[in-house]
Amino acid sequence: MGKLVRFGVSMEEGLLKKLDEWISKHEWTNRSEAIRDLVRQRLVEKEWENSDSTVMASLTFVYDHHVTELQERLTRMQHDHHGMVLSSMHVHLDHYNCMEVLVLKGKASEVLDLSDRILGTRGVKHGQLVRTSSGKTI
Amino acid sequence: MGKLVRFGVSMEEGLLKKLDEWISKHEWTNRSEAIRDLVRQRLVEKEWENSDSTVMASLTFVYDHHVTELQERLTRMQHDHHGMVLSSMHVHLDHYNCMEVLVLKGKASEVLDLSDRILGTRGVKHGQLVRTSSGKTI
Amino acid sequence: MGKLVRFGVSMEEGLLKKLDEWISKHEWTNRSEAIRDLVRQRLVEKEWENSDSTVMASLTFVYDHHVTELQERLTRMQHDHHGMVLSSMHVHLDHYNCMEVLVLKGKASEVLDLSDRILGTRGVKHGQLVRTSSGKTI
Amino acid sequence: MGKLVRFGVSMEEGLLKKLDEWISKHEWTNRSEAIRDLVRQRLVEKEWENSDSTVMASLTFVYDHHVTELQERLTRMQHDHHGMVLSSMHVHLDHYNCMEVLVLKGKASEVLDLSDRILGTRGVKHGQLVRTSSGKTI
Repeated sequence: MGKLVRFGVSMEEGLLKKLDEWISKHEWTNRSEAIRDLVRQRLVEKEWENSDSTVMASLTFVYDHHVTELQERLTRMQHDHHGMVLSSMHVHLDHYNCMEVLVLKGKASEVLDLSDRILGTRGVKHGQLVRTSSGKTI
Repeated sequence: MGKLVRFGVSMEEGLLKKLDEWISKHEWTNRSEAIRDLVRQRLVEKEWENSDSTVMASLTFVYDHHVTELQERLTRMQHDHHGMVLSSMHVHLDHYNCMEVLVLKGKASEVLDLSDRILGTRGVKHGQLVRTSSGKTI
Repeated sequence: MGKLVRFGVSMEEGLLKKLDEWISKHEWTNRSEAIRDLVRQRLVEKEWENSDSTVMASLTFVYDHHVTELQERLTRMQHDHHGMVLSSMHVHLDHYNCMEVLVLKGKASEVLDLSDRILGTRGVKHGQLVRTSSGKTI
Repeated sequence: MGKLVRFGVSMEEGLLKKLDEWISKHEWTNRSEAIRDLVRQRLVEKEWENSDSTVMASLTFVYDHHVTELQERLTRMQHDHHGMVLSSMHVHLDHYNCMEVLVLKGKASEVLDLSDRILGTRGVKHGQLVRTSSGKTI
């Protein structure tokens, strides 16, 4: 995790109380963890604004595997960018529908391009890209 | 602003460096301000998840004022909810297009309803609701 | 509104039924209006991805006007970019809190910069930028 | 895919031209596919607003596997909700960092809860939930 350093933060009493309520009710284990998460989230957003950053992503999509040639097309697109698709996972939802998740690594602009192309393919019904990070810089 | 209290936060050295770079390059004036903003943002998001919260919002939309009866309809919807529309601002964009911003106050669910109805009106081309807060609890 | 043209769309029976349910329950007045809105929304998102596009925006923010020099700072920032701030509206929320909405016009990258700077100012508690359009191209 | 039906849509000439430019440059294969995708996306968003809907999701997160007991905690949370976690995929990013993707199925409110708990666990650095659908109703 890298060496931990400690620093002071000043906050309005009322805001801190709200934060503590939130921590006790829901997500995080303590204030530092909450604050680190919020900072990391912002930094990852900013990383993606630079189209040359090397980023990690996952692309989730739901499709109807009976659509003619859809699977061939999806496979071909992934092979055309084989350097970018680190791995994939497939779930059979019902007789028609499949869900697939790809883990992607590459330049932000190239990852966005591949995502656009896959989500725009006929038969791909819904999907979304998660923009995350290799974890090194956060 | 309420009384300020001070507490310690521990963070990985590398993450803190990234945060400081971000602060020096861009938005905030110091670490505490950055962290307070990130906390407030999350708390406001959570406030809106409770449909009974009393919230503040702004609704921005662009419309073509030549569309028959559009202005009458928009005015009527606002009057039907006159308790919710605190004020409005109008900008003439060109011969056809207007931009309007409403400041709204009410229960989260009612504000969302009014927003849906206005954005769905024929002639309203584009718009978005900003979900914010009265500032009291943050 | 420009001349209307008509074209055919094919859609799965089940999906069309769902769309019609949505239209009858909520937002839009008819299918064409619904579809035009969805198309416009996507086009506006894409317009903002080109940092040189001339765009319209609104910036909504809540602040505590007792914070020293905050109003001077906010006024100065707006004057430094007086070409970009077309108009503004102010609402007194309570003894401490104000809400302000600015209507902005400029290059996407410059609008984003000004928005970052205002939202990062000490005393500005919460805010958000709405990315919209002059309406000409949609 | 279900039976295809055909209906007419009217649209301003300028807007249609923009849509066609977008289709030819980027994502979709034709107008119907573009419009079906935009409709599905909106319907899925609305499905998630009902906390009782049965939904599909993927949860992507990056974590440092050296953090004490993190893997045990993540495994335990998944087992506590074994009905919800349909499958998972793991990618080793470097000596410290891992990326994991879970495919989740359940009530919207329960999926959101589990996602909040995992993303708030100490050592989980970044992550995001993709809200999608079983494909049956879209």
